[in-house]
Amino acid sequence: MYLENINGPEDVKKLDIGQLNVLADEVRHFLIEKLSNHGGHVGPNLGMVEATVALHYVFNSPEDKIVFDVSHQSYTHKILTGRKQAFMNPEHYDDVTGYSEPSESAHDHFVIGHTSTSVSLACGLAKGRDLAGGGENVIAVIGDGSLSGGEALEGLNVAGAELRSNLIIVVNDNQMSIAENHGGLYKNLQLLRETGGLAENNIFKALGLEYVYVAEGNDIASLIDAFEKVKDTDYPVVVHINTLKGKGLTYAEENKEKWHYGAPFDVQNGEPKFRSEDEDYGDLTARYLLEKMHSHPQLVAITSGTPAVLGFTRPRREQAGKQFVDVGIAEETAVAMASGIAKRGGKPVWGVYSTFIQRTYDQLSQDLCINDNPALMLVFWGGIESMNDVTHTCFYDISLLANIPNLIYLAPSCREEYFAMLDWAIGYREHPVAIRVPVGGVISRADVRTENVDWSVPAYEITRRGSRVAILGLGSYYQKGEETCELLEAQGVEATLVNPRIITSLDTGTLEALKSGHELVVTLEDGQIDGGWGEKIARFYGNSGMMVLVRGQRKQFEDHYIVEELLKEDRLTPQQIAEDVINLIGKK
Amino acid sequence: MYLENINGPEDVKKLDIGQLNVLADEVRHFLIEKLSNHGGHVGPNLGMVEATVALHYVFNSPEDKIVFDVSHQSYTHKILTGRKQAFMNPEHYDDVTGYSEPSESAHDHFVIGHTSTSVSLACGLAKGRDLAGGGENVIAVIGDGSLSGGEALEGLNVAGAELRSNLIIVVNDNQMSIAENHGGLYKNLQLLRETGGLAENNIFKALGLEYVYVAEGNDIASLIDAFEKVKDTDYPVVVHINTLKGKGLTYAEENKEKWHYGAPFDVQNGEPKFRSEDEDYGDLTARYLLEKMHSHPQLVAITSGTPAVLGFTRPRREQAGKQFVDVGIAEETAVAMASGIAKRGGKPVWGVYSTFIQRTYDQLSQDLCINDNPALMLVFWGGIESMNDVTHTCFYDISLLANIPNLIYLAPSCREEYFAMLDWAIGYREHPVAIRVPVGGVISRADVRTENVDWSVPAYEITRRGSRVAILGLGSYYQKGEETCELLEAQGVEATLVNPRIITSLDTGTLEALKSGHELVVTLEDGQIDGGWGEKIARFYGNSGMMVLVRGQRKQFEDHYIVEELLKEDRLTPQQIAEDVINLIGKK
Repeated sequence: MYLENINGPEDVKKLDIGQLNVLADEVRHFLIEKLSNHGGHVGPNLGMVEATVALHYVFNSPEDKIVFDVSHQSYTHKILTGRKQAFMNPEHYDDVTGYSEPSESAHDHFVIGHTSTSVSLACGLAKGRDLAGGGENVIAVIGDGSLSGGEALEGLNVAGAELRSNLIIVVNDNQMSIAENHGGLYKNLQLLRETGGLAENNIFKALGLEYVYVAEGNDIASLIDAFEKVKDTDYPVVVHINTLKGKGLTYAEENKEKWHYGAPFDVQNGEPKFRSEDEDYGDLTARYLLEKMHSHPQLVAITSGTPAVLGFTRPRREQAGKQFVDVGIAEETAVAMASGIAKRGGKPVWGVYSTFIQRTYDQLSQDLCINDNPALMLVFWGGIESMNDVTHTCFYDISLLANIPNLIYLAPSCREEYFAMLDWAIGYREHPVAIRVPVGGVISRADVRTENVDWSVPAYEITRRGSRVAILGLGSYYQKGEETCELLEAQGVEATLVNPRIITSLDTGTLEALKSGHELVVTLEDGQIDGGWGEKIARFYGNSGMMVLVRGQRKQFEDHYIVEELLKEDRLTPQQIAEDVINLIGKK
Repeated sequence: MYLENINGPEDVKKLDIGQLNVLADEVRHFLIEKLSNHGGHVGPNLGMVEATVALHYVFNSPEDKIVFDVSHQSYTHKILTGRKQAFMNPEHYDDVTGYSEPSESAHDHFVIGHTSTSVSLACGLAKGRDLAGGGENVIAVIGDGSLSGGEALEGLNVAGAELRSNLIIVVNDNQMSIAENHGGLYKNLQLLRETGGLAENNIFKALGLEYVYVAEGNDIASLIDAFEKVKDTDYPVVVHINTLKGKGLTYAEENKEKWHYGAPFDVQNGEPKFRSEDEDYGDLTARYLLEKMHSHPQLVAITSGTPAVLGFTRPRREQAGKQFVDVGIAEETAVAMASGIAKRGGKPVWGVYSTFIQRTYDQLSQDLCINDNPALMLVFWGGIESMNDVTHTCFYDISLLANIPNLIYLAPSCREEYFAMLDWAIGYREHPVAIRVPVGGVISRADVRTENVDWSVPAYEITRRGSRVAILGLGSYYQKGEETCELLEAQGVEATLVNPRIITSLDTGTLEALKSGHELVVTLEDGQIDGGWGEKIARFYGNSGMMVLVRGQRKQFEDHYIVEELLKEDRLTPQQIAEDVINLIGKK
């Protein structure tokens, strides 16, 4: 096995083409073994094995710097740069992250997880090199799916004219985003593939870049040939390689969307090793919207390249027809389009992961909220029980959305409230609305009142009347508030429990009323404290004698946290909250 | 005078070509008169007179919907759609804003002020029309300078494939951004102009769009011809028109950068009517950086299309050479590049208006702060004494930047602190740093200590020791704190005055110490309260008996406010603050 002797790129360079091909097979074998047992990004990694081997054969990493966009295709790079044990030995599977990580290796230059950043980051490395008088190659590796994002297009434009020196942009064209691609540039990529790179209009040349096409993007000899041609070039150049997403797993090659990312699976047939029978809000939301679309022809669901987030599988997308829009990875355009659709009388519903809200802040403020158009946003997975890669943490949507004027941001505490708010918002025409879809399982509250509620009016629900301390549990932290109340009760404190339901404005009447009979208000929110909701409550009570304890995540990047541990560190378990309450107010 | 009889687009349609040409001359005459007396966007508006006349001749606004990107070229549109008095009668000059404004007219569909949004917004109008079964034309008018922004490129890509219906994109190519254009696509536009639209690689065709070229973009007959060809088309099409920025004013045609925007001027020679001899921070910053660049070859100033913000006039840009980078209107790439340059050992200094920070939130968080690279950002004009168009208010940079982990955001109270922080930050390599450049004039404080300060360590400066109440005046609101202390003194209250100097972390030692002898802390910040700095202080004191009064802007979009009035509404004058302090703590 050649892989046994590969401890860094210098060992890759010792092999001949035949041996490199065997090495690629070995790498693919271990990738499949780890992916099937551990889960991870299947399709993107399997398609990039040969190109990564060729990159390390030709270039001298880490002096030459390779920047992987999104970096969910960087597993082979990790294997070849000293981290193979994390792929060959199950005991070490968790030694590496699923993304580029400079703390793991000098061969990784940035922590990267959101898409479309590589070209601009590489422009920076190249400019830094030029200022320092360096001579290394800078290589950005970007998938076709990532090209539709604004930052990538900006970066290509800047690279095409502002850099007069070495920059190599490898476009890994596997003909897919997570789902199918969307946008005119993909017709151009198709034309380039069909013409062997010779099509009349070439998006890269039109942006001022030199261009090389590699038809066989999984053929190491062809790739080495192309990379050697552009190595040490003194101008920016695109190497467009045609690769096969999911290569090596028939079912992944055939159903690329399903196999973009996979939980542990049976290698023989691709069947998942674990099945969840739990309901989930994405699925429930898609069912609801599809039903509603029949009677509401101007209702349109929008995604920015992640249709699964709101449950729109391919059959459902087909069912929705023109009432479903995928703009590709282009959150900025998704929000602006939503504003335009709402302005023209339609009801757009943009479903988005919490972590991607920040990709479109200007559009949320300018295109949507200043214009006060009644678009609807469904923010999924916001909170701690979500993705835990540092680039994908979901702690920030409250601090981002809560502070934009005109927007109404709602926080349902359960399934019943969520669907009542969704139903109300579809008919609402006064302001833009966002709903923070609960995380951590679908929870029902039988007692909740949802009929004929105007959710735009701040009206906190008091579900338990006590005294001395009031617990305000926002959204999916309402249940944490409930548990805290029970723990306090056991210690003789009858706390008041409040379900605030709305993030963007305060129910000042209820807050005022709490001054009577209470000396402490505790706010619980599933997100970062700084800039968040609890601080607004603390401000409200600033001119009074009311104490306020604000609980949520500390302002700190967290990587691969364990939920229970992080909750403890932030003193967010019901036990800790109850303890801190007692410490502040005393038992009697 | 034809203009006398133009009360809406229907009157434009009554004229023949000869009369339309006269009408355009009349419009230009009044534009120049208003601009020279009132100030405004000179170049963009003068270049778009003929095209706007032609648009209203061919299309049926407001049923057909015209969306002007940035909308600082929409004055002629306002004149032709019932708002001519605001351009012909000096008494009514302020009846309209300088941007699209739906509250003024049904011919305006969005409030628009930031660049690069029109194509995506128009995609939304077109999609909304298609869902509603409508048949109107949707037209986006976008300048060449705005094309480099991510949202515009995303929008072109989406338009090129996802819309199968009418959308007309008029590219107003005046060969300029605010300053010269930057990016590869401008080489393509040049080639298209040189070949009469026939160049082999065509950026628009490569994005899947149909394409029409108009060489004479200031010739009404040619424009009408082109617009009539694309009217009622059932696919997206680009009409690329070659216009002359500043047309009609020789000096504006010759110095396009200077005449992008102008304060009142003498029409004869272009000399400004009013001269300011005041020092300004942009100019001082450029002088400082140019000097520093001699000894620091890896120091590089970066702008995203607004070099004037940090004082880099054209001669200074030439002087800086490769140590100055303009990425064009591409804030996302500016931040990512800064991160890359810092990673490679350089010191990038990105100068940006407060209002544009929000255009690149994801890059600030992901590309820069997660990676903790030591780039430096200078945030100019943050606060109330800044631009007062609703799209350009500068109230949000604190709530945006203060809540990103790893970032250090500094708030100098005076010239001496600003330059000490700038000097320190250029040598600092631990974290990304931003400095909120003071607004409202260059103020010196003779007494301030700046030598050998590590500004990353939160250490509030106590400049006046009193009791009962402590005033914390952040950045340029330090002076407001001073004035308040003087007013309080006159009423027998000796207040403590604090200059916090840092926004992103709290000097908990000083805050703790204030608990002794003080019952009230007042925070003053020049920005929105919600999500801002004062709320963090309120949270800090939540578990104590300390009262906290948080002052700043309410969460509310403000348009064309008068500074003094807005300050009063937010109870931010020193008199009001002192009054509220006395009300809370009593005179003795």
